[in-house]
Amino acid sequence: MSTFTRSSGRAADALRPVRITRNYTIHAEGSVLVEFGNTKVLCTASVEERVPPHKRGSGEGWVTAEYGMLPRATHTRGDREAAKGKQSGRTQEIQRLIGRSLRCVFDLAKLGERTLTLDCDVLQADGGTRTAAITGAYVAARDAVAKLLADGKISASPLLDSVGAVSVGIVQGTPLLDLEYTEDSACDTDMNVVMTGRGGFVEVQGTAEGASFSRDEMTQLLDLAAKGIRELTALQAAA
Amino acid sequence: MSTFTRSSGRAADALRPVRITRNYTIHAEGSVLVEFGNTKVLCTASVEERVPPHKRGSGEGWVTAEYGMLPRATHTRGDREAAKGKQSGRTQEIQRLIGRSLRCVFDLAKLGERTLTLDCDVLQADGGTRTAAITGAYVAARDAVAKLLADGKISASPLLDSVGAVSVGIVQGTPLLDLEYTEDSACDTDMNVVMTGRGGFVEVQGTAEGASFSRDEMTQLLDLAAKGIRELTALQAAA
Amino acid sequence: MSTFTRSSGRAADALRPVRITRNYTIHAEGSVLVEFGNTKVLCTASVEERVPPHKRGSGEGWVTAEYGMLPRATHTRGDREAAKGKQSGRTQEIQRLIGRSLRCVFDLAKLGERTLTLDCDVLQADGGTRTAAITGAYVAARDAVAKLLADGKISASPLLDSVGAVSVGIVQGTPLLDLEYTEDSACDTDMNVVMTGRGGFVEVQGTAEGASFSRDEMTQLLDLAAKGIRELTALQAAA
Amino acid sequence: MSTFTRSSGRAADALRPVRITRNYTIHAEGSVLVEFGNTKVLCTASVEERVPPHKRGSGEGWVTAEYGMLPRATHTRGDREAAKGKQSGRTQEIQRLIGRSLRCVFDLAKLGERTLTLDCDVLQADGGTRTAAITGAYVAARDAVAKLLADGKISASPLLDSVGAVSVGIVQGTPLLDLEYTEDSACDTDMNVVMTGRGGFVEVQGTAEGASFSRDEMTQLLDLAAKGIRELTALQAAA
Amino acid sequence: MSTFTRSSGRAADALRPVRITRNYTIHAEGSVLVEFGNTKVLCTASVEERVPPHKRGSGEGWVTAEYGMLPRATHTRGDREAAKGKQSGRTQEIQRLIGRSLRCVFDLAKLGERTLTLDCDVLQADGGTRTAAITGAYVAARDAVAKLLADGKISASPLLDSVGAVSVGIVQGTPLLDLEYTEDSACDTDMNVVMTGRGGFVEVQGTAEGASFSRDEMTQLLDLAAKGIRELTALQAAA
Amino acid sequence: MSTFTRSSGRAADALRPVRITRNYTIHAEGSVLVEFGNTKVLCTASVEERVPPHKRGSGEGWVTAEYGMLPRATHTRGDREAAKGKQSGRTQEIQRLIGRSLRCVFDLAKLGERTLTLDCDVLQADGGTRTAAITGAYVAARDAVAKLLADGKISASPLLDSVGAVSVGIVQGTPLLDLEYTEDSACDTDMNVVMTGRGGFVEVQGTAEGASFSRDEMTQLLDLAAKGIRELTALQAAA
Repeated sequence: MSTFTRSSGRAADALRPVRITRNYTIHAEGSVLVEFGNTKVLCTASVEERVPPHKRGSGEGWVTAEYGMLPRATHTRGDREAAKGKQSGRTQEIQRLIGRSLRCVFDLAKLGERTLTLDCDVLQADGGTRTAAITGAYVAARDAVAKLLADGKISASPLLDSVGAVSVGIVQGTPLLDLEYTEDSACDTDMNVVMTGRGGFVEVQGTAEGASFSRDEMTQLLDLAAKGIRELTALQAAA
Repeated sequence: MSTFTRSSGRAADALRPVRITRNYTIHAEGSVLVEFGNTKVLCTASVEERVPPHKRGSGEGWVTAEYGMLPRATHTRGDREAAKGKQSGRTQEIQRLIGRSLRCVFDLAKLGERTLTLDCDVLQADGGTRTAAITGAYVAARDAVAKLLADGKISASPLLDSVGAVSVGIVQGTPLLDLEYTEDSACDTDMNVVMTGRGGFVEVQGTAEGASFSRDEMTQLLDLAAKGIRELTALQAAA
Repeated sequence: MSTFTRSSGRAADALRPVRITRNYTIHAEGSVLVEFGNTKVLCTASVEERVPPHKRGSGEGWVTAEYGMLPRATHTRGDREAAKGKQSGRTQEIQRLIGRSLRCVFDLAKLGERTLTLDCDVLQADGGTRTAAITGAYVAARDAVAKLLADGKISASPLLDSVGAVSVGIVQGTPLLDLEYTEDSACDTDMNVVMTGRGGFVEVQGTAEGASFSRDEMTQLLDLAAKGIRELTALQAAA
Repeated sequence: MSTFTRSSGRAADALRPVRITRNYTIHAEGSVLVEFGNTKVLCTASVEERVPPHKRGSGEGWVTAEYGMLPRATHTRGDREAAKGKQSGRTQEIQRLIGRSLRCVFDLAKLGERTLTLDCDVLQADGGTRTAAITGAYVAARDAVAKLLADGKISASPLLDSVGAVSVGIVQGTPLLDLEYTEDSACDTDMNVVMTGRGGFVEVQGTAEGASFSRDEMTQLLDLAAKGIRELTALQAAA
Repeated sequence: MSTFTRSSGRAADALRPVRITRNYTIHAEGSVLVEFGNTKVLCTASVEERVPPHKRGSGEGWVTAEYGMLPRATHTRGDREAAKGKQSGRTQEIQRLIGRSLRCVFDLAKLGERTLTLDCDVLQADGGTRTAAITGAYVAARDAVAKLLADGKISASPLLDSVGAVSVGIVQGTPLLDLEYTEDSACDTDMNVVMTGRGGFVEVQGTAEGASFSRDEMTQLLDLAAKGIRELTALQAAA
Repeated sequence: MSTFTRSSGRAADALRPVRITRNYTIHAEGSVLVEFGNTKVLCTASVEERVPPHKRGSGEGWVTAEYGMLPRATHTRGDREAAKGKQSGRTQEIQRLIGRSLRCVFDLAKLGERTLTLDCDVLQADGGTRTAAITGAYVAARDAVAKLLADGKISASPLLDSVGAVSVGIVQGTPLLDLEYTEDSACDTDMNVVMTGRGGFVEVQGTAEGASFSRDEMTQLLDLAAKGIRELTALQAAA
């Protein structure tokens, strides 16, 4: 296996410096700025006392997510989706992924008939925005749940586990953990992995960008991801 | 592990009856009706002598896909996306997946500056429409390539390999190959796998619907998928 | 009057071979593939136990239609309306015509407060898609009505008559029945006629494509259409 | 045949008072207020020195139309289409009809590579807005052509004939010319007829609102329409 | 200060000829054609017995406005907003301004739970369409209120005052009242002022088109506007 | 005049604590976080080497702005405009205001044929977001201009002056500078004022929320605004 040298001398199996800042803004029930190196995502958790039609009268709540990127979060300015009048397929894919990932650790019956919306807005992008978003959204959701408990709106936590996510990929033959933008652009295979704190898989999305990848490579990538998410889980707990 | 009994006495590792009908309609350069049991998808391949802006002047072509479902392809009538004025997030996710999967087996330089569009329209749905679509779209694409060669528009085939796809999942603890609708609705874990004819992975998309899944379960699902795609590859070759 | 020679030696007053296949798909209450030569339209009838706002509480039901064309149903690929985000004026005109034509043979009070939606999707186009759609939609509607009667949801048929449609036109001075695409493109006058099984007119839509047409020509076209619809009525009854 | 008594003692075969006011507004190349009784439509003809893509480089011009209704042109306020973000199917049908009708009397080659747009905006509606619009749009178009000739932009008139339109229908068994709103709402059959000044048919659009109509009724309606359009042609010439 | 000579020898502090025609169309509860020179706006007031969600159950009514411009109201044809599928930012700004201005003279409780919609449609534009619209909309609203009183639907007028508006600006150093299009295009500063009949300010919107403006210039512009609106108030009362 | 007591004992003519943080994000040519108390707006300036159609070939550049609010920047969650598919009238009004205000201090010829886009995204809202946005956008624009000069892309600064903005209003009879949200909600009159560093007016937008306001009140509000903007100008210079 050839070896690829990462910026700042980062090891192939090392996360970027991760920072989780709670109470980043004042209005939301949970508000977290999550940073994976230069990637910065603001994740807010909003509680609303109503549910979408498919949950009305069910006694269950709903957890959903929306994702956005500020136009100049990226190297060159991207179109503002609100101005274009539609969200891109990429945006929709990502927000559906975040929503599914969070719902996986929620007992919707214990949440009661209310909606928890996770808004994940990328202030600055340098690769891995969707995995940072999931990792930060969990902490924002946890804060919102704590507030519901403190306010006596629910008596038991609907959270079943924590959830975190990281990207892995193969660049010039080297499997790498937590790709930054230049690595992501150059990689042959790109995989986003979402796991619970107890180590169960929630989502695995691997894509061959150029050549297809082998079963062996997949094994190495999943090992790397599991290592990374264990570390993220500890950081979430410590936040 | 408990065992789940499938309809028609199908084995856990068996595909549904698969039928690939070429030249299903007369106008397209490639036109294939692909059937996985009761799932029926019409895949047409259209060649146009122009490329999207990001390929203009590059000497390379483009391969893309669009996906749709007739309103009454399903048990209950769904809204017509053209009437609603937008494609759902699910539709966009699927057509992006089909496009990426097909591009993975194309040498875009050998295609020349032209676009190959794969339209995958579901006439009848019973689970696995996206994997059937990829499997059928490859055959339609192969026919369109054959026509380009026969017409002397290209001198060498841009196809690098074949590509096929299948869904796998875990229902009541039993790993199953090629889920039909009732299985898909009941499954704990659902995975769509896309592989080349030579056995390389192109896409792996696993999702925990309820509880998370383990590394072991993932291994079993990937084994099942590989078996299924080997059989599909043979059927594509024979078509 | 000059004479125009049709493909396959078809007589000026002859329909193309017409085929009506019932139960073409499995989920819809009525599902018919109708073929007028190379024109193939899938017509499904869906029953839903709700009515649009203007019929709520009226005791009456509603019959409506939607029309679509697969992108590669035609000689060259057309844009997918769902991807463009709007239905063309042509599509809306056609689906409004189909809806009015079907409502004309329905006693909406006998249907009860439910909606019958006719989805007409063109799988392959060679002229006359709207008239084939009306002809096929009637048979799908009849099957859906039979199911409502069999299920005991209604006790008397709301169908007052059958309805069918055909196109007629003048090509190089010759009045022709049931135009195929090459004739349609070349015609001076194009007329779509919808009639009931008992011979009443439901819709007459004549358009001069180039020069205007005379009262005499109109008479000849209406005669041709009446002959064609009599034959279609027999085929519908026999299906 | 039963007889139906019209408001103001109007005869069954009489037009409402028709008024055609030229130069109603100052900016357009042609600007006509056309009144059929209480129906008032402002028709402007605008000349632009460019053509749509399908005519570029053809040496030919284009004639097109747009139609709108002010929100309170009607008895109860209708939604503003600009605010809703889409034109209704009815609006699109009507503007396509106006466009086709006008193109039928134009020699597009003699117009040269320019576009003539007829905007028909209903200020007050009382039935027959589309036929009034066609009748007025012709006069606006004629004025715009006169201006092009006067300005030396074209040397010969592209107008081949005049064109006018009227509605006819059967109310309580009585065939009537030029329906006003209360008659239109009550009619069994409604037909819009467009004819050239020389008496050729351009469009015939008959619709059974309730029961179907017979060949005989059609004959009577076409006779009435022809009479009405002869009178309108004289009024257009005199304007 | 340099002096600018106006068309038709109009004085710097003179309004254009203003004409207010009531009952311009027949269906609306209030219908006014207002003319400021060549600017002509049709203002209709429509009463509907329902309120938007934020007023339901409040016992209060709502007053709102919509604004539009016919495509050929202007020197060159503008796009039809209904055809483009969206209202421009300018249109939305104007209709929000008209709505706020009218609400300012309404006691919404006295209006009762009903909606008064002011539709302001520009038939011909020559500068100052928004201020003409406000001036005319007030008269249409007054007529609608009179009708509600006459019909016994309300027992006391909800109108607190009259409201009118005019534009002022600085052209080549000269402050001018009621700008026409050529002046508006050439001005350095443009200000729209809305005032009540008793002389209170409702809206002041001043914009530097080129260089910024001084406090002194602002004073002169406000004086001019106050003079103009006093005259408009008299004309509204006399109408 | 009654007096209104402000939170934190703020004087009626005092700004909230204002903080201007440059280089807040790394990709944009100018990136400023501006804070007026709890209102926080991220303003980025992006340079692109192309101009909109109306400036092509003119030798002049263009300055424009877009505005957005994160869904949970506010007390209760607002809809995401990208998900709704359209920008509200309020958003469009604000971004047009920001764009005009910035253009007023730019010599577009000196900018050259390039576009400067100011993206103003509200991370946290507490009143006065549009005036904070203008104040911050100027600093971001200044940084982008400095970069163009440093990179040798332009040889002289296109900036003619600085520009800043503040809101003023009357609450319970007391004129106040720089309204926060609770004051803004309660105010009778609300005015946004934009001025250059040299003290010229760029925009004055005053609105009576309830009762109209007098000439005297306007004078007091303009005095307050001028004082506030002088202070903001000093803070911009110091940043």
